[in-house]
Formats: sequence, structure tokens, C-alpha cells
Amino acid sequence: MKTTGDQQLVKRINRSVLLRLLRRRSGLSRAQLAQESGLTKSTVSLLVRELIDEGWVTETGPAAAHGLGRPSTPLQLDGSRRAMIGVEIAVESLRVVGVSLTGEVLWSVEEALAEHEPAAVCRQVAQLVVRAHAALAARPVLVSGVGIGLPGAFDEASGTVRFAPNLGWRNVSFLPLITRALAEAGCPPVAVHVQNEADTAALSEYEFTDGDAKDSLIFVTCGVGVGAGIVLNDRLFTGLQGMAGEIGHSILQIDGPACSCGRRGCAETFFGARALGQLPDPARGGVFLGVVLQNLWTTFNPGALVVGGPSCERHPDIVRTARDTLDAYATSAGVAPPPVRPARYGLLASAVGAAALVLHHELRPMHAPSLIH
Amino acid sequence: MKTTGDQQLVKRINRSVLLRLLRRRSGLSRAQLAQESGLTKSTVSLLVRELIDEGWVTETGPAAAHGLGRPSTPLQLDGSRRAMIGVEIAVESLRVVGVSLTGEVLWSVEEALAEHEPAAVCRQVAQLVVRAHAALAARPVLVSGVGIGLPGAFDEASGTVRFAPNLGWRNVSFLPLITRALAEAGCPPVAVHVQNEADTAALSEYEFTDGDAKDSLIFVTCGVGVGAGIVLNDRLFTGLQGMAGEIGHSILQIDGPACSCGRRGCAETFFGARALGQLPDPARGGVFLGVVLQNLWTTFNPGALVVGGPSCERHPDIVRTARDTLDAYATSAGVAPPPVRPARYGLLASAVGAAALVLHHELRPMHAPSLIH
Repeated sequence: MKTTGDQQLVKRINRSVLLRLLRRRSGLSRAQLAQESGLTKSTVSLLVRELIDEGWVTETGPAAAHGLGRPSTPLQLDGSRRAMIGVEIAVESLRVVGVSLTGEVLWSVEEALAEHEPAAVCRQVAQLVVRAHAALAARPVLVSGVGIGLPGAFDEASGTVRFAPNLGWRNVSFLPLITRALAEAGCPPVAVHVQNEADTAALSEYEFTDGDAKDSLIFVTCGVGVGAGIVLNDRLFTGLQGMAGEIGHSILQIDGPACSCGRRGCAETFFGARALGQLPDPARGGVFLGVVLQNLWTTFNPGALVVGGPSCERHPDIVRTARDTLDAYATSAGVAPPPVRPARYGLLASAVGAAALVLHHELRPMHAPSLIH
Repeated sequence: MKTTGDQQLVKRINRSVLLRLLRRRSGLSRAQLAQESGLTKSTVSLLVRELIDEGWVTETGPAAAHGLGRPSTPLQLDGSRRAMIGVEIAVESLRVVGVSLTGEVLWSVEEALAEHEPAAVCRQVAQLVVRAHAALAARPVLVSGVGIGLPGAFDEASGTVRFAPNLGWRNVSFLPLITRALAEAGCPPVAVHVQNEADTAALSEYEFTDGDAKDSLIFVTCGVGVGAGIVLNDRLFTGLQGMAGEIGHSILQIDGPACSCGRRGCAETFFGARALGQLPDPARGGVFLGVVLQNLWTTFNPGALVVGGPSCERHPDIVRTARDTLDAYATSAGVAPPPVRPARYGLLASAVGAAALVLHHELRPMHAPSLIH
């Protein structure tokens, strides 16, 4: 009894099960994979052979002999033959990276964003992706797909950027645009995934870990805008219209300072980059970042809180102050504070996470919308 | 290729697929179920026969003739032969309900909570559950399981109530206690599920709907405590230690009033029942409830926001004020406000939702921890 007639989907699901097992515990043998997955040994052998041939998995190290049986070969994710391309469209710049399956940045470039008009942005992105593709192919490394993070709300169902205020975009039919631009730039056919930059940043902390990724995970990014990427129940959570995580516009003080969004007292009015630039002591903004972390903590009870973005690089004091604030709240309440860690990829978090978005979909074939052009 | 060797699990998954299809669209025929599920017609016939025999599904109404073929029989969830028992352990009272698969309250009772000591509470609950069981059996109605909502953080992995401040409980090994109490009271063996009362309340809005349940859904409950139940990606979200949704302790004002938790400026200090009781105009508390709704909106971009709990019954004005506040924020930001609706089961929301918790697990066999005693 199958719940779907799609044999191809079942195969993709089983491949993803094996890849996820190997990510969690590198060095498992085929027999162990069969035991852990519930698949038959012959199915595992067949799929592992495919995964090796396609550059996902590698057999390395000495075969381990166990008692009398045939020595078993340890398997692991292949960090050298396959990569994802990640793009961050920031307000003033573009970052493009090539990232291995194990999270190593193999190639990267950054350049100023020439124009804000959607088609022009897509053409500039496409040129850099073609360069990344050529550089990776020369190593040689296969490309699994392209992920794009951008400063706005993206609606997966329609492929549309609903609203990206800092780019001046509203209801931009982005996926067809970028797809056409990639084709016109001569990019080989490739799956393309798009998300908000805070969401992709969260995946940079979630997908490339040796089994220590905690579900759930919240990534708070602090720049001109303040946002959160949210991973829950092992999946990115983006809300009804792709606008979840807009914590920069949570109200921290009734009748507080006027915000660019039209409301008053939003988090961004206290520690958005513009507000920090006007404070005599930017660390004071960290108190409000601490309040936001405290509120995310009580709301989500997350496994991990990560803080990143340009403001954290420019004003490291705000992160320290935020942690102190959070610790003080925890002490008042008589509970242990949640762990807060800095972004491990620094300013590359959104671009690396955009690459991770490709992996995120690859490993969740039941939920993956994608577009092959 | 199966991903699991457990044929029984595959069968439970397929049954749940059929039940969910019928919940979404009542009146589907076997042929339509086969088409929608991807299962073969013979598998569907076999499973539907079982579901009818067990009281989950009923064939009713005239058979519809389509063209030349055999007339097809419309199927629907059976609202008369099977029920779940739901329990709310509140700070001062117990509520127990029997709820049909279609959300009808078939039986209910409320009595004062005699003691707060965990074993005594469990004994009192067990006696009421036995009464409910007997009353339902007499109709006759089959009982699918017992769900319990309580005012604390419940850790599913260990079956432990970590912290229920208003009951004075900390690290209470609740599941073994209630299981033993049910057995000693002579309750027939039955699956038992436990959750926080705000979480169960959310399920009262999510599980008994004819296809209009929006994913995601946030239920805000306002009483002595203020909390939120959260359904995301079609599953209850409770956080790392079962403490997600503790929005009563999100900070709405730095250096605000002292809260019972030890922090200052928590939401509960503005519109918890104790705070409302001290305000000359309780509706003023609704402004802060509106801020909380606004912050949940920007954080989750939810499909539905529901507001309930004793304070909303006692001071209906706070809900009106909260909506006005939320609408004003939306107007300022130039966007449409999210829909906010009152709890459809009123003060029974947590108890009815505890019954829905049984259904929630039944329909998600991949994720259901449960205990059969």
C-alpha cells in the first residue's frame, strides 16, 4: 500500500533519508544505513551507488572489519564534488557563494548592486551566477541548484516578491524574471529557490551541521531592517504570505518613536541600523535587542538563538548588552537563559544560507516547490 | 521500496489520509478518495470498510448516480458513534467533556478542584473520566482516547509537567500518575495525551472544522495567566521544553510593573486577570492585548488569530479594544489587519481542545507519542 503512485518521489524520499542519516552520523556503513532507515540492504546498496556516482556521498577511510563478516565501508557526505550556489541580494550589494554539501565556502564574490529595478537586478545576479557556475565546474564541482535570499517577503506559491521596501519592490513576479535572466546569461538549467534573507540566514546555521542543529532555531538579523528566520519542526516557517519573522516591527513601547513603517515603538526604532547610528552609545540599542531575544525565547522556547547581520559586526557591544539583558531577565525569573550564539558565517550568513536553501529542499522532497528552467 | 518495515504504521497513515480527506470534503465517494489519495480502489474499499466498522466513517444520504456507472455512495465522518474525552485541569476547577469526531459536545461536567496535590488531582480527574466514559458508553459511543490540558509546561518526551506555577507543581511525573489513577478508578484501557491548556485550546479551533482551519493558527488565552497555543505546519508547536507560547511573559515595556515571574513589564502585568481587576477601566488592558496580537501577527504572519479565556468572557470590552488597537497598527502600516475571532467553544475551549488533542495525534500517526495503559 503506497500513499502515492509516484515511484520517483518514493525514491527521492529514500535518498534524502540516507543523506540525512549520513549528515547526522558520518561514517555509517551500508548495513547500518539499512538498519537505521528500515530500508532493505539491497535498496540501500542501489541508492548509495547512485549517490556516490552523483557526487553526494563518498567512501573513504579504511574499511572497518567487524568480527567474522565482510569489512564494512564507512560512508560520508562528499564535501568535494558537489556544491550549491547561494546569492544574497542586499540593498547595496550582491554576494554570491559556492558552498559544498558540508558547508565549506568554495568560492565567493561581492559587488555593488548597480540598479534596483527588478529586471536589472536579475541580470546582474545571473552574470555572477554564471561566473560561480564556471568557477565551480573548473574544479570540477557539480552544481545542485541556486538559492537566492532577498530583503523582502517572498510568496513561494506564486513566485512573487510581495514587498521589499528597501529595494522599492512590490508584487514583483521574481521567479520568472530570474529564471529568464539565468537562461539569457547562458546558465545551465538548474533548480532555483528564493526566500527572505533572514530565512536563508537561519538555514546557514541549520543545514550544515554535524547533527548539532537544534530544532527549533531562530536567527535574528540586525541591519537597516531587523528580521528573524525561523526553523520549526525541521522546516523553514515563513507564515501565510511569507511575512513571518518581521520582528523589526514588533512593538516594544506603546507611543514610542515613529517607525518608517508608520507604526510607533517598533524594534527597528530602537536598534535598526539607522537608530543605532543616531545613538550616542549604540550599546544602549542592545538592551532592546535583549528584549526582543527575551520575547522570542518566551514565545518559541527555541533550541537555538543566533544573532547576526551588519549591525552586529559594526557594533559588537550591542550583542554583549543584549546577552546581559537576556541573562538578567532569566535571573529575575529564576530560570536558565537560552544559549545565544553569533552567526558562524558572519556577513556571508544570508548568501551561504541561500545555498543551504537548495539543500533544505533537496532533503525534504515532500515539500519542495522548485522550478527547473 | 518502503521507508519503514512497519506495515501497521503504513496502514495507520493511509487511514489518517482518508479521514483527513473526508474532514476537508464531506461526501466524497470511495472512487474520489482513491483519486485524491493516490491509493488503489481496493485499498480504499478495505480501509473504508474498517473505518465504518469502527465508527469513524458513515455512509449516509442517497447514493449519487453519475452517468452510466454504478451509483457512488457519499461518505462522511461519523459524528454519532465515536468520541474523545477532554479534560481541563484549571487552577480552581475541572472540566470534562465528551466530544464527537465532528466537534459536537456530547457530554460535559464541571466541578471545583478539591486539592492541588498532583496525585489527588489525578484521582479526581480519573473519577470524572470514568463517569464520562460510562455516560458515552451508554449512548452507545466508543471512546478513542483521553486528552488533558493543564496550566503548565508539559514535556512530551518524559511525560513530565515541568512547571505549573498556579498549581504549585514542578517536575511532576504526570503521565504515570494519571495512568495509574485511571486504572485504579476502573477506566478501560485508553490512550492518554497531555498538553498545556493554551495548546489544547488552539486545537479546539483547528481540528473540528470543515476545511476552513487555516495553517498557522494562534490561540491567545487570557485569564490569570496569559498564554498562546500555536499550530504551525499542521502540527502543534510547543518548543524545546514544552514552554513555547508563554507570551504572558513577553516584555511590553522596559521597567514596567513588576510581574509575578520576577521580570518587569510582562504582558500579564497589563492584562492578566489580576491586573484587569485593579484597573478602573479594564478595557485599557485591551490596548496591551492589541499590542500582543500585533506582535504575534508580525512574528508569525498566521492564518488565524483566536482570542479566548475567562477574561474575555468577563470583560468583553478588552477584545474590542484589542481589535481596534490592532486595526490602528495595520492602518498606520498601510496593510490589511489579520482576522481575529473569538473562541467558538468559549470557556470550554481548553477541555474541548484536549479532546481534539486525541484526534490530532490519531490523524498524525508519524508523530504521535501516546501511552496505552
